[in-house]
Amino acid sequence: MLRRNVQTFLACDAEYKDAQIVMFGAPFDSTTSFRPGARFGPAAMRGESFGIETYSPYQDRDLTDYAIFYSGDLELCFGDSSLALKDISKRTATILKDGKLPFMMGGEHLVTLGAVREVAKRYPDLHIIHFDAHADLRDDYLGAKLSHACVMRRCHDILGDGRIHQFCIRSGDRSEFEFAKLHTDMHPFGFGGLDGLVSCLKAEGTPVYITVDMDCLDPSCFSGTGTPEAGGVGFVDLLKNLLTACSLNVVGADVNELAPMLDASGASTALACKLTREFLLALCAGK
Amino acid sequence: MLRRNVQTFLACDAEYKDAQIVMFGAPFDSTTSFRPGARFGPAAMRGESFGIETYSPYQDRDLTDYAIFYSGDLELCFGDSSLALKDISKRTATILKDGKLPFMMGGEHLVTLGAVREVAKRYPDLHIIHFDAHADLRDDYLGAKLSHACVMRRCHDILGDGRIHQFCIRSGDRSEFEFAKLHTDMHPFGFGGLDGLVSCLKAEGTPVYITVDMDCLDPSCFSGTGTPEAGGVGFVDLLKNLLTACSLNVVGADVNELAPMLDASGASTALACKLTREFLLALCAGK
Amino acid sequence: MLRRNVQTFLACDAEYKDAQIVMFGAPFDSTTSFRPGARFGPAAMRGESFGIETYSPYQDRDLTDYAIFYSGDLELCFGDSSLALKDISKRTATILKDGKLPFMMGGEHLVTLGAVREVAKRYPDLHIIHFDAHADLRDDYLGAKLSHACVMRRCHDILGDGRIHQFCIRSGDRSEFEFAKLHTDMHPFGFGGLDGLVSCLKAEGTPVYITVDMDCLDPSCFSGTGTPEAGGVGFVDLLKNLLTACSLNVVGADVNELAPMLDASGASTALACKLTREFLLALCAGK
Amino acid sequence: MLRRNVQTFLACDAEYKDAQIVMFGAPFDSTTSFRPGARFGPAAMRGESFGIETYSPYQDRDLTDYAIFYSGDLELCFGDSSLALKDISKRTATILKDGKLPFMMGGEHLVTLGAVREVAKRYPDLHIIHFDAHADLRDDYLGAKLSHACVMRRCHDILGDGRIHQFCIRSGDRSEFEFAKLHTDMHPFGFGGLDGLVSCLKAEGTPVYITVDMDCLDPSCFSGTGTPEAGGVGFVDLLKNLLTACSLNVVGADVNELAPMLDASGASTALACKLTREFLLALCAGK
Amino acid sequence: MLRRNVQTFLACDAEYKDAQIVMFGAPFDSTTSFRPGARFGPAAMRGESFGIETYSPYQDRDLTDYAIFYSGDLELCFGDSSLALKDISKRTATILKDGKLPFMMGGEHLVTLGAVREVAKRYPDLHIIHFDAHADLRDDYLGAKLSHACVMRRCHDILGDGRIHQFCIRSGDRSEFEFAKLHTDMHPFGFGGLDGLVSCLKAEGTPVYITVDMDCLDPSCFSGTGTPEAGGVGFVDLLKNLLTACSLNVVGADVNELAPMLDASGASTALACKLTREFLLALCAGK
Amino acid sequence: MLRRNVQTFLACDAEYKDAQIVMFGAPFDSTTSFRPGARFGPAAMRGESFGIETYSPYQDRDLTDYAIFYSGDLELCFGDSSLALKDISKRTATILKDGKLPFMMGGEHLVTLGAVREVAKRYPDLHIIHFDAHADLRDDYLGAKLSHACVMRRCHDILGDGRIHQFCIRSGDRSEFEFAKLHTDMHPFGFGGLDGLVSCLKAEGTPVYITVDMDCLDPSCFSGTGTPEAGGVGFVDLLKNLLTACSLNVVGADVNELAPMLDASGASTALACKLTREFLLALCAGK
Repeated sequence: MLRRNVQTFLACDAEYKDAQIVMFGAPFDSTTSFRPGARFGPAAMRGESFGIETYSPYQDRDLTDYAIFYSGDLELCFGDSSLALKDISKRTATILKDGKLPFMMGGEHLVTLGAVREVAKRYPDLHIIHFDAHADLRDDYLGAKLSHACVMRRCHDILGDGRIHQFCIRSGDRSEFEFAKLHTDMHPFGFGGLDGLVSCLKAEGTPVYITVDMDCLDPSCFSGTGTPEAGGVGFVDLLKNLLTACSLNVVGADVNELAPMLDASGASTALACKLTREFLLALCAGK
Repeated sequence: MLRRNVQTFLACDAEYKDAQIVMFGAPFDSTTSFRPGARFGPAAMRGESFGIETYSPYQDRDLTDYAIFYSGDLELCFGDSSLALKDISKRTATILKDGKLPFMMGGEHLVTLGAVREVAKRYPDLHIIHFDAHADLRDDYLGAKLSHACVMRRCHDILGDGRIHQFCIRSGDRSEFEFAKLHTDMHPFGFGGLDGLVSCLKAEGTPVYITVDMDCLDPSCFSGTGTPEAGGVGFVDLLKNLLTACSLNVVGADVNELAPMLDASGASTALACKLTREFLLALCAGK
Repeated sequence: MLRRNVQTFLACDAEYKDAQIVMFGAPFDSTTSFRPGARFGPAAMRGESFGIETYSPYQDRDLTDYAIFYSGDLELCFGDSSLALKDISKRTATILKDGKLPFMMGGEHLVTLGAVREVAKRYPDLHIIHFDAHADLRDDYLGAKLSHACVMRRCHDILGDGRIHQFCIRSGDRSEFEFAKLHTDMHPFGFGGLDGLVSCLKAEGTPVYITVDMDCLDPSCFSGTGTPEAGGVGFVDLLKNLLTACSLNVVGADVNELAPMLDASGASTALACKLTREFLLALCAGK
Repeated sequence: MLRRNVQTFLACDAEYKDAQIVMFGAPFDSTTSFRPGARFGPAAMRGESFGIETYSPYQDRDLTDYAIFYSGDLELCFGDSSLALKDISKRTATILKDGKLPFMMGGEHLVTLGAVREVAKRYPDLHIIHFDAHADLRDDYLGAKLSHACVMRRCHDILGDGRIHQFCIRSGDRSEFEFAKLHTDMHPFGFGGLDGLVSCLKAEGTPVYITVDMDCLDPSCFSGTGTPEAGGVGFVDLLKNLLTACSLNVVGADVNELAPMLDASGASTALACKLTREFLLALCAGK
Repeated sequence: MLRRNVQTFLACDAEYKDAQIVMFGAPFDSTTSFRPGARFGPAAMRGESFGIETYSPYQDRDLTDYAIFYSGDLELCFGDSSLALKDISKRTATILKDGKLPFMMGGEHLVTLGAVREVAKRYPDLHIIHFDAHADLRDDYLGAKLSHACVMRRCHDILGDGRIHQFCIRSGDRSEFEFAKLHTDMHPFGFGGLDGLVSCLKAEGTPVYITVDMDCLDPSCFSGTGTPEAGGVGFVDLLKNLLTACSLNVVGADVNELAPMLDASGASTALACKLTREFLLALCAGK
Repeated sequence: MLRRNVQTFLACDAEYKDAQIVMFGAPFDSTTSFRPGARFGPAAMRGESFGIETYSPYQDRDLTDYAIFYSGDLELCFGDSSLALKDISKRTATILKDGKLPFMMGGEHLVTLGAVREVAKRYPDLHIIHFDAHADLRDDYLGAKLSHACVMRRCHDILGDGRIHQFCIRSGDRSEFEFAKLHTDMHPFGFGGLDGLVSCLKAEGTPVYITVDMDCLDPSCFSGTGTPEAGGVGFVDLLKNLLTACSLNVVGADVNELAPMLDASGASTALACKLTREFLLALCAGK
């Protein structure tokens, strides 16, 4: 008998009950302030992952050796962000309740808030490691409190001072940088300070949520994103630092802001797939 | 002394006080259910209009002979549709109050609701002439009442039965076509019945709002739109019927759903400009 | 418990045992002589079908009222056409054995041969209705007998004279047109003669395989194909004639030659989805 | 011994001495007022012609039965139009002197002037048949007398009243249409009047230059051009009328204004190749 | 009362009388030898600047703290370079006369000549700092003395030996490199020698014109340009050296050679905007 | 008399008898496992080379000082890889027999096998220097032994252990990396070890074939390829190491895997041309 057409990410086809990590897509970009299209990120990554190997020569590990389940995309409401965030929170809660690590593929960066709300409930001492070109610390954007430009500010509302660690930031308005000085742990332009931070957090076993806005990368290697910001980090540099961060007690994670149609060559989507493979392998290895 | 850089649509550079028609852009596409990008429609049309003549050999009229004012784009909130609609209504109200005809360039089709709310206040016996591939009669879309897929349903909430005249419709779910049978005046696929309708409404001097979702056109001539739907009308057919409709007592109008980045050739944007030129000329001539 | 990510075409999610029609993808384009990319057709159509309604106002029927199963893409060998054709034949055989109608989404046109080989075994009096811009009647192409330019010639090897009915043909070398005069039933440029043919075949209950090379359409509405050929038929014309053909005893069918990346607007892919919806509805209705 | 890489258009590889028709490319677009790129037209057409058959089912003729020579592209000076036109005139003169028909592939439409200057010298009673969306009758464009927007006006300077027959025109400023009423034989929008004209000119054996600005076509089938103008003719209509015109005493010809990069699907380039094949076949047949 | 649609670059909306810097666009690319499109640079940059912050974390300065006026694009004649250059010179002269710093956005690189002609009149001891991939030192290009490939040679005609300082140069014919050895101060491939040069020129208070052909950047981060040349500098490197140069007595400046349509991702345009923001901030700070 | 249209690469227009190097194109991509299009590489490079200088400031050499012949593209059979390889071998044999160095422009990487078969016949002690992102060491790919993913494995079948030197490799399945440990000389990620290797091979005068799969480059500077793989080397790094390798006794060479349509900016094609110019200059200089 013929089987249905199951589409997963790479080789992530474990049984749900066996899975350490449960992935899902959050195809949402309703609050994108400039070029939309991040809604097509998860589907593009699944499709493109057909062209990527399961084996990593960087880590000498193979995805086929680990148990990851891909649970599919949420069907999110466009035009009502709070409704969309609720659906994300609900999926995150299910995964956490079953003792698995939620791994979300965005969508615009606002989707992180839906996941963090649940993860922070379960891990009240949660810290966030945030790789991004943009500070995302506005209090509102043209009146909207729920905007991709405000997502870290909303996370700060939940977690409070000193728990959000921001790297690669090179864009924001003046007030965001001033807010950061007082309330977050911001490391502009690159990864300076990451090694020290990881040593600290590792010593304490702090639960960590890692959110990778892939526009932290330089647009030369990741032009497929809504607000490309020159002066970013390279792929190898990001990879190295992401692997370092994955040595922590990671309890939730996401990659976001791939807008695949903006890079018709497919190179941005391929990079996103490769980065996600490495991310998953490092998380699995750390378990 | 050097002047500021004023960017208008074609030759629409009258003084505000002299203008018959006042144009504005509504760059919003937050509820788009499939491919976004209509937010870039107004800016693209202004830029492209540089390549279009002011003279129409179809009507033997020239835009330079009429007084039209272009008041610029609204800055609309992404992610909160009701806020965006309020801003559209406010601009529309200002223009109506000053005794001028509001002409809006979308944006996704939901923007029409912001304009119709005000126009219907001023003209309680308003009818709508609606050119579109899609019925837009859903009661909600994934929970959102304010969605481009619901815009004519929301207009029906205001105007009631028999006041919405729909042409070129060739897509919708079954329930929308059933709703149309009971509540709107739907002419599927083409312009059949338009001449008769115009005779009727003209006789009564009925105030009319014309909304042109440019995806009524066949994607062969208008591929730059979020949900292209094969089997549409041609440009010349649309032009002829639009001119017929413009012989009515038009009190408000819009063109919408150009997503310029989806047609990299620029042909869709050029068509939108030409159609808008003809639309404006016919409205001016009818005044 | 969370479910796997099943990706189907539109609403084609019946249980296999209940299905009248079983779909599958044949993502192959290894013999394409000019612009490749048809291998991405099936995946693009599944993804794009998210933006298409299940209801047809043309037929007043809804896909949700019928039982269709989507069994996923074959993983075909690039660079060895005979191996790829064997896999297609095997899938076709399984579907036929289970008493269901096979519906294939190509891929380049050569894939039709894999299906026809099996269908002709089961229905020795099979006729083919062939919509295409190209005659596809070469005996070989640069030495290859298995080429998309030869597919109808290979079908003729199986079926013999007078059993292949070709419509919309407007390209080929002189020898192909001469071959057609002697051996096939060719109707160049359009659908002239189709109504008469259908009357004949219907009277006899002849089993028919319908193969739609979508480049029969004019490139204005279907530019996303490897060898666009000006002077083709329009969507509405194709639809009308396809519905006519579906009134026959159809025992196998395919649509092919969408190369989605060549039409970045997505309009070609959207058209292919809509055409396939209508095709499926007409086949279901005829059962 | 290995041969050099000769690149021609389709099968146009006769010996120069045998050739009836001598083709050449004029890759120039320096005066293009909106989107440039027509300079890449000839190279794209040569490359794309690899995917086109030499046989025409429309005329039942094959290019391999005629003698055509392709002499390659001129290397034209960008930024100095008069210099570029001189080079075009020189090539045209050589071909005419050798008793062959010059067939130029543009480039922007201004290149026609370079050819017409020479052809008119040789045939003082020359008429021009001009297919175009635009009147091209301005006296200057931002001060430049040599501009693609003025090319027919410059030809009128040479030929005088009543010798330029314009078809498909649907764009221009008011003054151009007024000029046309007095000085040219303009048939707006389509081919109305062509049959009568051809009868007249044929009776008198008048020498004719045919210039086809391919933007006379609707942008639906020819979006790869700098100033696409909705409301144009279809390919089959153009083909039919072009064949009619080719029954005249044609002494020079060109096709122009393909800007291949603007239509990334390649469909515009493919159409230009097919149209040129038909054009050449009809000219050969008339000799 | 509603206002006209003023479109500026970022927050450059001072009153003319208050402005230190006056910007204008020079949308010209008539002499481009390979891929045209730089004419669309200024419009694209204005549009894209909507997505860029006014605050620079690199300089900790904000454009809203300075007075810059944007005076709009010149309407330049295509096909007659000397006419176009005259219009550029005239605008430059007006700005200089009013005691403000002219900042031009090209357009192809030839536009620099129009500005330099005026700036050199006012500052006879002018030096030029030139960042570019190409030497631009040909005496003519296919006969044209006014070509983007000759612009620095024409500047040398005005300024003489040792006054043109070229950085990042990695392309040219042999004779250009030989000319440079004798007549200009060329630093191939990168910024070697810039610090020393700046020390010298600063000590003497020399007036300096800075021209940034953005193709000095590696095509990895700036592919949207007509002649991309591998092996260029990165954004951060360019930024650092540009800021160094801005510490001089800068009396005129331009950025040029963005051809926005060639990089459909928008990343090149976004970079050009960010670079221009930094350029303007550094110039303002130096005043 | 007018000449035929000869299209070569840059200035490679020597007489065949004088040529040191004979180039040819191998436009084949039938086994490409993901995004096809490499078949268009040679034609795109010829066309693009018009925009590149013949002089190299890196080597201070000029192509016009050397004798290179361009013999045109092979017409290869799509869908039958062994037939295509035979044609490549035949051309290679001719060039070798005439005492010239064969330089092939692919096409997908499988084409290398056709050349290596002949070169290894003539030089039984041949070594291969292989720059690539992918190991290309699979024994088969979905059943096909002749696949671009297997090309180095097939070369190993011919040459045996220790004769294939692989650099920049960063992708493959686990078994390929294990095979490499035992049978090839693999240097992952970059050029570590190249200098030492070159010293060794140079001392022994070993004949070397250099194959450059340009996807060894980072996708930031070379996105126009079917399987872009993040984390690659930069252009300057590749150039430096390629020049080092060219100091060896090179007896055959190729560049491959440019898929020009995937990078619409043209930057990848321009890079491929520049790299090829440097490659040719270094080979000529070494003779």
